[in-house]
Parts: sequence; C-alpha cells; structure tokens
Amino acid sequence: MNTPSSRDLIYTDWTLIESQFDPQQLRSRETVFTIGNGYLGTRGSFEEGYPHALPATLVHGVYDDVPVVYTELANCPDWLSLVVIVNGERFRLDRGEMIHYKRQLDLRHGMLSRSVRWRSPTGNTLDLKWERFASLADPQVLGLRCEITPVDFNGEIEVQSSLNGYPENQGFDHWERLDQGKTKLGIDLGIEPGIWLQVRTRSSRIELAMAAKMTVDGTDADFQVTNTPGYPTLMICFSGTAGQTVSLEKMVTVFTSQETELPVQAAQVKLAELPSYSVLRNAHQQAWNEVWQHSDIEIEGNSKAQLAVRYNLFQLFISASLHNSQVSVPAKTLSGFGYRGHIFWDTEIFILPFFTLTQPAIARNLLTYRYHTLNGARRKAAHSGYQGAMFAWESAATGDEVTPRWAMPNDPYAEDVRIWCRDREIHISADIAYAVWQYWQASGDDIWLRDFGAEIILDTALFWMSRLEWNAKQQRYELCGVIGADEYHEQVNNNVFTNRMVQWHLEKAVVVHEWMRLKFPDRATELAQRLQLTSEQLQHWQAMIAQIYILYDAKTGLIEQFEGFFQLKDIDLSAYEPRDRSIQAVLGIDETNQRQVLKQPDVLMLLYLMRGTPAAFPYCPDVLRRNWNYYAPRTDITYGSSLGPAIHAILAADLGAADPEEQFMQAALVDLEDTRGNTADGIHAASAGGIWQAVVFGFGGIQLKDSGPVATPHLPPSWTRLKFKLNWRGTWYSFDLSPPLAQAPDAQVPDIQGLIFDLDRGFDGHCRISLSSLAATG
Amino acid sequence: MNTPSSRDLIYTDWTLIESQFDPQQLRSRETVFTIGNGYLGTRGSFEEGYPHALPATLVHGVYDDVPVVYTELANCPDWLSLVVIVNGERFRLDRGEMIHYKRQLDLRHGMLSRSVRWRSPTGNTLDLKWERFASLADPQVLGLRCEITPVDFNGEIEVQSSLNGYPENQGFDHWERLDQGKTKLGIDLGIEPGIWLQVRTRSSRIELAMAAKMTVDGTDADFQVTNTPGYPTLMICFSGTAGQTVSLEKMVTVFTSQETELPVQAAQVKLAELPSYSVLRNAHQQAWNEVWQHSDIEIEGNSKAQLAVRYNLFQLFISASLHNSQVSVPAKTLSGFGYRGHIFWDTEIFILPFFTLTQPAIARNLLTYRYHTLNGARRKAAHSGYQGAMFAWESAATGDEVTPRWAMPNDPYAEDVRIWCRDREIHISADIAYAVWQYWQASGDDIWLRDFGAEIILDTALFWMSRLEWNAKQQRYELCGVIGADEYHEQVNNNVFTNRMVQWHLEKAVVVHEWMRLKFPDRATELAQRLQLTSEQLQHWQAMIAQIYILYDAKTGLIEQFEGFFQLKDIDLSAYEPRDRSIQAVLGIDETNQRQVLKQPDVLMLLYLMRGTPAAFPYCPDVLRRNWNYYAPRTDITYGSSLGPAIHAILAADLGAADPEEQFMQAALVDLEDTRGNTADGIHAASAGGIWQAVVFGFGGIQLKDSGPVATPHLPPSWTRLKFKLNWRGTWYSFDLSPPLAQAPDAQVPDIQGLIFDLDRGFDGHCRISLSSLAATG
Repeated sequence: MNTPSSRDLIYTDWTLIESQFDPQQLRSRETVFTIGNGYLGTRGSFEEGYPHALPATLVHGVYDDVPVVYTELANCPDWLSLVVIVNGERFRLDRGEMIHYKRQLDLRHGMLSRSVRWRSPTGNTLDLKWERFASLADPQVLGLRCEITPVDFNGEIEVQSSLNGYPENQGFDHWERLDQGKTKLGIDLGIEPGIWLQVRTRSSRIELAMAAKMTVDGTDADFQVTNTPGYPTLMICFSGTAGQTVSLEKMVTVFTSQETELPVQAAQVKLAELPSYSVLRNAHQQAWNEVWQHSDIEIEGNSKAQLAVRYNLFQLFISASLHNSQVSVPAKTLSGFGYRGHIFWDTEIFILPFFTLTQPAIARNLLTYRYHTLNGARRKAAHSGYQGAMFAWESAATGDEVTPRWAMPNDPYAEDVRIWCRDREIHISADIAYAVWQYWQASGDDIWLRDFGAEIILDTALFWMSRLEWNAKQQRYELCGVIGADEYHEQVNNNVFTNRMVQWHLEKAVVVHEWMRLKFPDRATELAQRLQLTSEQLQHWQAMIAQIYILYDAKTGLIEQFEGFFQLKDIDLSAYEPRDRSIQAVLGIDETNQRQVLKQPDVLMLLYLMRGTPAAFPYCPDVLRRNWNYYAPRTDITYGSSLGPAIHAILAADLGAADPEEQFMQAALVDLEDTRGNTADGIHAASAGGIWQAVVFGFGGIQLKDSGPVATPHLPPSWTRLKFKLNWRGTWYSFDLSPPLAQAPDAQVPDIQGLIFDLDRGFDGHCRISLSSLAATG
Repeated sequence: MNTPSSRDLIYTDWTLIESQFDPQQLRSRETVFTIGNGYLGTRGSFEEGYPHALPATLVHGVYDDVPVVYTELANCPDWLSLVVIVNGERFRLDRGEMIHYKRQLDLRHGMLSRSVRWRSPTGNTLDLKWERFASLADPQVLGLRCEITPVDFNGEIEVQSSLNGYPENQGFDHWERLDQGKTKLGIDLGIEPGIWLQVRTRSSRIELAMAAKMTVDGTDADFQVTNTPGYPTLMICFSGTAGQTVSLEKMVTVFTSQETELPVQAAQVKLAELPSYSVLRNAHQQAWNEVWQHSDIEIEGNSKAQLAVRYNLFQLFISASLHNSQVSVPAKTLSGFGYRGHIFWDTEIFILPFFTLTQPAIARNLLTYRYHTLNGARRKAAHSGYQGAMFAWESAATGDEVTPRWAMPNDPYAEDVRIWCRDREIHISADIAYAVWQYWQASGDDIWLRDFGAEIILDTALFWMSRLEWNAKQQRYELCGVIGADEYHEQVNNNVFTNRMVQWHLEKAVVVHEWMRLKFPDRATELAQRLQLTSEQLQHWQAMIAQIYILYDAKTGLIEQFEGFFQLKDIDLSAYEPRDRSIQAVLGIDETNQRQVLKQPDVLMLLYLMRGTPAAFPYCPDVLRRNWNYYAPRTDITYGSSLGPAIHAILAADLGAADPEEQFMQAALVDLEDTRGNTADGIHAASAGGIWQAVVFGFGGIQLKDSGPVATPHLPPSWTRLKFKLNWRGTWYSFDLSPPLAQAPDAQVPDIQGLIFDLDRGFDGHCRISLSSLAATG
C-alpha cells in the first residue's frame, strides 16, 4: 500500500507533526512515533488504547522462545496504560467526536506529545495533553504526563494509571506474572503511592520488573492502588471543573535480570529515589543535546529532507545501546514485530557506519555483540559440517541460527515455502568481518581488535577455508549453492558479491594475523592455539585468495552476478508499472528466479563496499558506470528490498549522472510516509543507516583517507548547505558544505578536508567552508 | 512419567476425592477436575491462581487461527478468577501454610468443591470453602461459591471477583477485548452490581460475552466495580471476624455469536433474570439425575472400578453437545490444549457407541457435525486430486484438513519432522461411514439417514472410488502409501485394516443407496444428481468390493498387517521393560518403522470393528485367537496409543483367555492416575469411550441383535454385579448382570436378553437378573 501523500504530516527542522488522526494509519504511525533510549523502545501507541492497536515496549536482549521463528523480542509490560473516565464514559478516540488532534515528535529533545480536544458521546468536552519520554540520561526511567481540562462541564473524572502485565507479540504472551504490589517505600515514607509488577519470560526465564508512581497537580484527591491480577493500577477520582486543568505525572522504572539480580527491588529503590518529573525531563533533554552535537546532520534549503534525515538518525540512535555489548540493532529496531527482533547483516553493512563515525563507543558495542555470539556461530558451522565460525543469517541472544525454516501459510492446502537464507546466504560472515575492519580503520582501536575483532575475523576465515570448494578441473576455488545480496536468486554458483567479499575477508585476515603477530605476539599465539590456526592454513588462505573464482569480463567491464545470470530471461521493469508490490509478488518465486531481475543491488553493492579508501578491485569509475547501466534498470528498487535505494543514491552521486535526490527521498521517507506499506512492522533500520551513508558518502562525497576524511560534495539541487561531523581515529572533523555559487558544468569538484573540531570548545571562530570560498585542502 | 501410585486420591462410588495438594500434579489434576455441560468445559484450576497453572474454559466451536496447527479452540475468558486478600496478604497456596486441603468432584451432581485451611505468611488462619458448577440445566450459566471464615483473627478482608479477559492458549491470546462495563440492569434496578466483558477472536471473529454478578451473605459490605482494561472486577472489603463465615456467590452467563447476534445483551439479560444460586444449583443437579438414569454403569465389588468408570462417562458426557450439531468431541475433550481441540476418528470409533446406545440425540449431533463438514472434506479431496469427500484426519470448524504438516523442534539445528497423517491416514473416511451405519442400526433413525447419513456414506464412497488403484498385473484394487490404525508404520501398501474398512464401506454404500432408492426415491434421485452418482459407478463399486486386495492367509488364519510386515525385523517388547515412554521414543521413528511393533491394534482393531452382529469377515473366534497371539505381544499397549488398551481388554474378554481386568484398569485410570504422564494436556477421550465399550461389549459381552441387545457376561473376578441400560431402536434395555454363583470352568455362558425398561415408570417391580437366577432369553 503506497500512501501517495501524507498530507497530515508537517515537517519542521526538528519536529514531526501529525495534524490529524487517521485510523487507517494507526499501526504505521505507532511505528513512526516510536521513542526509546538504546535500552528499550516504545511504540507510539495511545495511552488509552485503540482497537487493533499494536502497543509495544521492547527491551534489548529480552528474547523468548516462539514456534517456527525460534525466538523473538518479547513485548514487555505496557507502562503507558492510562485510562480517563469522564462521568462514566471512557475517553477513547474510536467513540465520541475529535474536535482537535495533534501529535508531535520533537527529535531535538526526544519528546513525544499529543493534544486532543474530544467530545464524549453524551457531549462532555475535554482537552487532553500528553507527553512521554524514555530517559536518555537514565535508561531505566520512563516519564509520562497527562493534563486534563474539562472544557464545558463539571463532573466526576476517574483516571486509571496501570502497568499492563498482559502485553502480546501479535497474540503471543511471553510472560509469567510472578507478583505485584504496592511500593513499600512509598507507603513507609508517606510519599506518593506506587505499584510494581514482576514478570518472567516463559522459556528464557528473564525476569523483568516495573514500578510506577504518580503525582497530581490541580486537585486534592489521592491515588488508590487496585491490584487486579497482572494489572496493578493507581486510581484517582476527582471533581473536574470547566476550565481547570489537572496535571498527572507518571514515572516508571524498569529493570530486568540482565542488569540486576533483584529487578523488583531495583525498580522500587530507583522509583523511591527519583527526583521530580521536570528534573528527569531536563536531564533527558540535556542528554539528547549531547547526542546531536556529534551525530546531527544539518541541511539547509529543504526542510523536508532536513527533518527526514534527522528522523532516521533519531530512530537509529534510540535503537542501539551505549551500555550493553550483548545486544545489537534488530532489522526493525525496537519499534515493531517485523523480523522478530532478529539481527541481520543490515546492522554491520548499513547501520554501523553512522555509529562508527559519529558514536564509536556504540559501534564497538554492536561489534562486540558479534564477538559474544561467536559460540553460536561455531555451533552453526559445526552443525553444517564446517570449521570455525559461521554467523547466523538471523541472530538473536546466542548467535545460533534463528532464521525460520518455513514461511507457513494458514491455508491448510497451500504449500509451505522453504526459506533458504539460513543455509545459503553465507556472505553474512564476510560482512561482519568487513565491518570489524572498517571500525578498526576508523577508530584506530587496536585494543578492541586485539581482544575481540581479530578473533571474529580469524575464526570466520577458518569457516571460509572449510566452505570453499576446489574445482580441480578449472583449477579454482568456488562457492556453489549460495544466495547473494540479491535474494531473488535462491541457489546460484559463484556469486561475485559473495566470492569477492570472501576473498577480501581472507586478505584482511592475513593482514590482521600478521599485525597481531608483530604487535601482540602473545595474544596471537594464544589465539592461534585456541582456534587451531596453523601457518599451513595461512598459506592455504593465500592460495584461496589467489584462486577464488571472480566472474569479471575485463573487455566489457561487466561483472556477471553469478554463473549463468546473463543467460536468464531479460526483463523490462517499466513494463510492470504502475505496481504496488515486488516483482517477486507479481511473477512468483520460480519465475523471478528465472529472470534477470534483482531484489536489491548485488554487483553494485559489491562496488559500493569496495569503493572505500583505497578503492579495492573491482571498484573504479568506469566499471561502476558500465555495471550501473546494466544492473540499475534491472533492480526492483521500489518494492524489492528497502536496502537498495540508499546504495543506488550513493552510486548515482558518484556517477554524477542520475538524479539521486528522488531515490534518496524515497528511502528517507520509507517510514514517515509508509511508502512500502509495511512500516507497521517497524522502522526500516538498514534504510535509515543507508540514509546517513547517502548523505555523507554520496552527497558529501566523503572519502576516508589516512590523513582524515575528505569531502567531494555533490549536493542535491535543493540543498543550500550540508553540515555534519565525523570522528576519524579519535579526532572530530566538521564539514560545512555548500554548492558552488557558480561553476562551469564540467568543472572538477575539489576535495575538502574537514575542520578539526574540539567538541568541548566549539569552533572557536572557525569560518564556514563552502565550495565557493575554499580551495581544496585535502 | 508414570505416577506409580496416587495415594492422595480416594475413590468412593460417586465422588473423587483429592486429599492433599501436590504442586507436581498441578496441571494433570486441573484436567482431572474439569467440569462442563456440553457447551463448555472448565479445567479444575484454582480460583485464586497458582504459578504455572493452565486455567482454561473452552467453548465448543470457538476456534481461531494459530500458526502451524492452523486452528485451535480458543481459551475463553476465565470466569473463575476470585482473589481473597487478608490484611493485605493475598491467599495463594504457594505461600503460607496449608493446614488442611480437600478437593472433590461429585460425579452424581456435577459439582466440584474444595476446602482449605490456610495460614498466611504472617500467621492469619483462614477457612475457605469453594464450589463450582457449569449448569447442565442451562448451558449458558455458571456458578461459583466461596465461603470465608477467619479462624484466629479479626481483620480486613478484600475479595476481587473478576472476568479475566486475558486467557491464553499456552501463551497465545486469541482475543481482542472490545468493551466492558457495569451491568446496566443491575444499576437500573438497584439489585446486585454486575460486570460484563465483550471479546472477539482475532481471525475467526467469533464474539463472546460474559456477565457476572455476586451476592454476599454474612456482612453488610457492598460490591464495587473496578474496570481495569480487559479485567472487570467486583470488589468487596469487609471486616472479618474470627469464627464468622462470609459467603460469596458468583453467577456468570456466557454467550457467543454462534448462539445469538448480540452476546453482550444476551449475557446481561440472562444475568438479570437468573434465580438464586441455590435454585440454579438444584436445577443443575436435577439435570444430572436424568443423565445418569440413562447412562450410568453400576459396578459392585470394586469401588475403584466403579468410580473410574463413572468418571470416564462423566468426562465423555460433559464434552458432547445436546444442543449443537455443528460441533463434535475433540480428542482431549474441552479439558486441555492437547491436539488443539481437533476432532479425530477417536470420536466416531471410540466415543460414539456410548452416545449411540445411551444418549442417541447426542450421537446424532456428533454425526451431523460430519455432515456439516462435508464441504471441507470435498475441498480436501479436490486439493488431493480425488473426487467426493475425503474427511480430514484432524478436523475443526469447517472440516478442512488441519493436521499440522510439521512437528517443529525449537532447536534451530534439529530437523523438522513431517507429519504424514494428513496425507496418508485415509481410513478416517471409512471410520465415519462405519459410525453412521452403526448409529442407523442402533437408532433406526431412517429420517436422519435419509437427510444426512446417506450423503456422508455415498460421497465418501465416491472418494474411495477415485482413490483405489487398479493393479493390472495382479488384477486387484490396492491402496498404497497409507498409514493404518498403527501409526508406527508411516507409508505402507495394502494395510488390511484400511482395505477391509473401505471394502465394508463400499458394501454398505451399495446397501444404503438401494435402501434410499426403494424407500425415498425422490431423495435418492436428488442426491445421485448432486453427487453425480451413476449406475455405472455403483457397478464399479461392486467390482471394487470383489477385487480389493485383502492380505489373509486362510491356512494360518493370520492377517498380515500390510505387505511386507512379516518380513520386518521382529521385536521382543519385554526386553525393553521397564520403560516410561513409547517404543518409538526408545528406538526412533525410522527404526520403529523397520520393526514388527505396533503403536496400537491394527489387525486386532479390524477384528474388533467386524465383531458386531452379524460378525463380518474376518471376525471369527479362531481367526481372533491366532491373530491375538501374534499381534498382542507386539503392541506397545502401555506407552503407544491410549486407544489400544480398551480394545485389547474387549478382545481378551472375548477370548476368555487373558486377564482383562489389569488392562482395563490401566485404561480406566489413564487420567485419574496420569499413567501416561500427559493428562495435563487433557482427558483421553477415546480411552474413556473405550472404557464404556470394554464394560458393555467386553465384560457385558453385549451383542446387538435385531431382536435387541443380548449379554454374554464375563465379569472381572472382583466384580459382583454390573448394571447398565442400552437404547436399541428406541427401546431401553436394562441389564443387571452377576457372575454365576458357582459354575464349572468351561461351562458355556448363556446369553441374556436385556429387560425392556420404561424410564418414566421405572422397573415397576421387575426383578434383578443374574446368571445364577435367569436362563438365557435371547
């Protein structure tokens, strides 16, 4: 369902405004208005509920067993629940009359708010103002405020503020409700009454506790506790007076057994120690201030692009943990049930560069997650008959493979569809090694490479050694029966993307091993012993690097995606326009397999990954141009994978040929305007990461040179200014890019070195850089 | 897990008593203490809850979609929920001290009760007495009473009595919560306050409403309503006084959109009109009185057998609807989540005879369910490439096949196990035809056969016609690639059980068609036209009857279970004793497939089914003896299928050889003593039906002759008297059997004709029949 326009959305520099409520967009907007703090995410569901709503609070690492897909992030108790009853009528937007509605997400301060004027079925009019936040200053704390103003009546108002212990994952309830009660501290000290709830996941036995208290301003009434099983509630009744506002503040604490042995106690102690709501909110907003100092991208000239970019960065940032290296960013972040909280290559290839270059401590956590899951990857390798570590295509708590085997239809006569990625989409192990290398290059974090990264790179290299097949007749190493980046072709031989990534991986593995041997010989020896890595094997790697089969026609410059791709039936995608679903959905799985049509860039993806500094084979402008011309028109960029558009935009910017702005905006608005019709399932995290890369590497034309990052900007026509910062080997570089005031069409764009920037002291009078005023300094 | 003894259970003639509470048996005893009324079943869970309890109320026909197994009976809102809080401490049996505990199920009156003396962690002692019933007089009404007596303290007592709108099917919540409130009638009329809850299944869109009210005796306090979302609650606080009892009565009404368009209104209106609790209870007990007048079995001499038999009949009776012909008895009744409420051949072959011969109106409903699902059976046939109607191995609301395709392990590296019954266990269609025929024979219900039964028999015969394969070389009809009654062998050719049942089915189809043609020619013509049934096809059936391959060696009298069975590796089951799991679990699926070992009777099952009057090929005493000697020792009777023991007991009684009492008691206690370790999943309904058959056909030796039922009793040694009634073609026959006072070991047991019995007038002085006092009258 392509929503052709989203006229109800207003884009300002920092604030996304929804000016009317459309029940048709209920679930996609719940995703869009997700807030979070890297510890948890909470979808933008209404506090009072709505029919068919999908409220969710997802906490990193809280996985639990589920049929078919093995494990999923368990939807946690709902801390939002707040019901307002006016003269016996419950406030609910599906009844009565909505006179005014506005919901807004302030990205600058991480605040979600909503104001509603509502007339009840019997004619009582009410103003309600809500706001909520997940504290970035203290990830265990959540805040919610509700202001109630009777407009045209005096009457009895009842408010029920609860911890809802019956959350669900599309029908599945992962929790045992262990206990609940009134907060003892509150009672003992005579302060605000509070409630707490203790639950535990059914299979993984993760305990979670929430505690909540309320303060009220504008009435003398007190809160009472009712302990309905699984649904502890703070209830207050007061006489509402027309024109007089009563303000209620709910503060919630959350702990799981991942952080503490006694979550119930921790939640109650923390609750008792909390300062006021406004103090909490200020600390939260100050923390966001610091985030944007590093990670903001400023765009002038196109406020929609400005908001959309910031929105994507906001959603990325709240999905990654600064404090926990046991978790990573799921494909749909912590914002929805799509892909069940599983972690894909999306994280390392699409999302990680944003963190590596603007929040390196978070990038390190994300990669350390892969280190912690090496044992799962080893089990997968062993079960598949290989050595070393074979990373899961879909990964969760342990790193064991959790890609479902089957897509199961509910029609009892329909055939089950086998999902082959778990068996065949093996490039993930090279993708992770690639990200490890990039992080090392960007951060210079030798200690992390020694302690964590090297083991990832070397043990996955051992997997490749056992996975590569020697073709004696052709005297070459091959990888048969794989799925490349393009998943429309499910069993192919010698996919160039895979083979070249493996070759690159082995090249870097040799380098890392040698670097370790020289710099940290003891650790190198220990690691070699533990991984049973011998010098014969290293020589074997060299042979494999030299002899792996890479389909490349030097004459034409064309790279054949896999053996036989050019023999497949060709396709003219324009002949299928207009459409509102993927080509695979149009043609069917088998027919799509037989066509020269791609779900997402594959050869072009390889060219993108190899375009870094120094550019590696096969990246060069001429090869890029030839393959772009061949593959771009054959790629289902609109309804294939959402991972494609940003990559296309970057390469198009490289080529300076196409108009990348349209594709860019298509990707930037994928969730805001639900352009693929599946935003209800959660944020497209890889697309969001691609947006950052498209801005920085595409429009900014950033290349990461040993001397520091260098820009060769190609700003979209509507952009008058582009500013961002990058951290390269511990130093912050600031870019402030403008298009040339006037320039001959074919003029060579000069390189621009970023300004070194002291975050503590600011620019100190450094002047603004633009193409028109500065010569190349790189 | 074989529970070697259940010393906590006390067996009286009519009442099952649990004298202590063992948390290890929590879930199996929740099954055992299930109550119901043919409209719904409610497991024996505690009103106050318990960790890891599986409370469930299952309403017939309320199926909803679920992954993998397609559909399941949705656990309905929990009407039991009743929490007692004493001075702030919640009554819960996992805390504090249990001083006295007794739970008992009064089968005579359908009442479950419990009395507990409990001391709270801080030392307040409380007596609690509970009772509950699901009204048999009015299936929409449920009743619950709780009496609270402080023993050694005065203090604040709070009671929360709720409708819990968050029921779950092992984690899955099938419901959308639509609305809830206070009962208007209660408020308007100034009578007891009430609550109501409206929910709807997610996929099947079945609406359900419950309403509840409370009365209190022993205190002046009033109930307050709290409307926690999804959990409406009636709350009362009162001052408890040592030695003074407060009695609370909860009355609940239930309606679904299957019975009425407006369930919420229906539930509230019914609630407002209810008489007092004691009037409701009396009507309920009176209804049970009438049931037992028809369906009771009296045993003297062995009170454990007496209770166990009555218990099985009780569980059967509450699982079948007197009012609804759109539903049937699931394999685990309405008492648990095993087999997800799906309906198997268990109903027609094992359960139905009890109803056919003691509650024919219910039997008719159960068979009419199959008529209503013919369209599903036709879809299955069409999707499988066949004609006519091919009944689902597992059936639910529509009759479409809902056997899961896969048993899916949660270990991501374990192989999925394909479940082949949906494709290959085709005998179900003949089993249903068999039950239709038996019902017709027993009831003489020509109108039902004309309107419903004939279409079942004929359209399934058309299926067989398309399914039978002509072997030109051998000049015979065959059925290849099937699973017989014995499911240990998953793909066999010419299973005799299947082939003979199909032959029998076609024989009866010819008879029924001819009968229709003569007796109801218009209907016969209409049906033939609609089913496209031609005289050529009828001739074809005759050829198939004559030429279907039946593996039978007249020389040895042995029937080979399927082609090649006798060539399989033999087994000595005694070599695997003692064991606590099935032979398939011991040896694995593949190895079991290669052995001469049976999960349940197959050839012997065929002999059992063909033993009726007149006995059909291959049943005769000599063939039975020879095949018994071969197959009985090779059948995994202890941990294979629970469908086996009763059948063995009947045949052993026929043979007069083995001691059938042990096997009989093993089957009769399967749930009471959880002998197979899976009672937590629900009542073994087929086993319960087999118990009735074992008593009546085995120990009673009943044969159904045209002149009426005739007994040839073989009572177990401990039984001094056996009484039951049978309805044969509209007339009730009463049997009162005793062992001979003294008899030579080889004396021929005479046949005994049942006494014709007028239920309205009773026996009117008819004297008791015993072998010693009566000559054969048959």
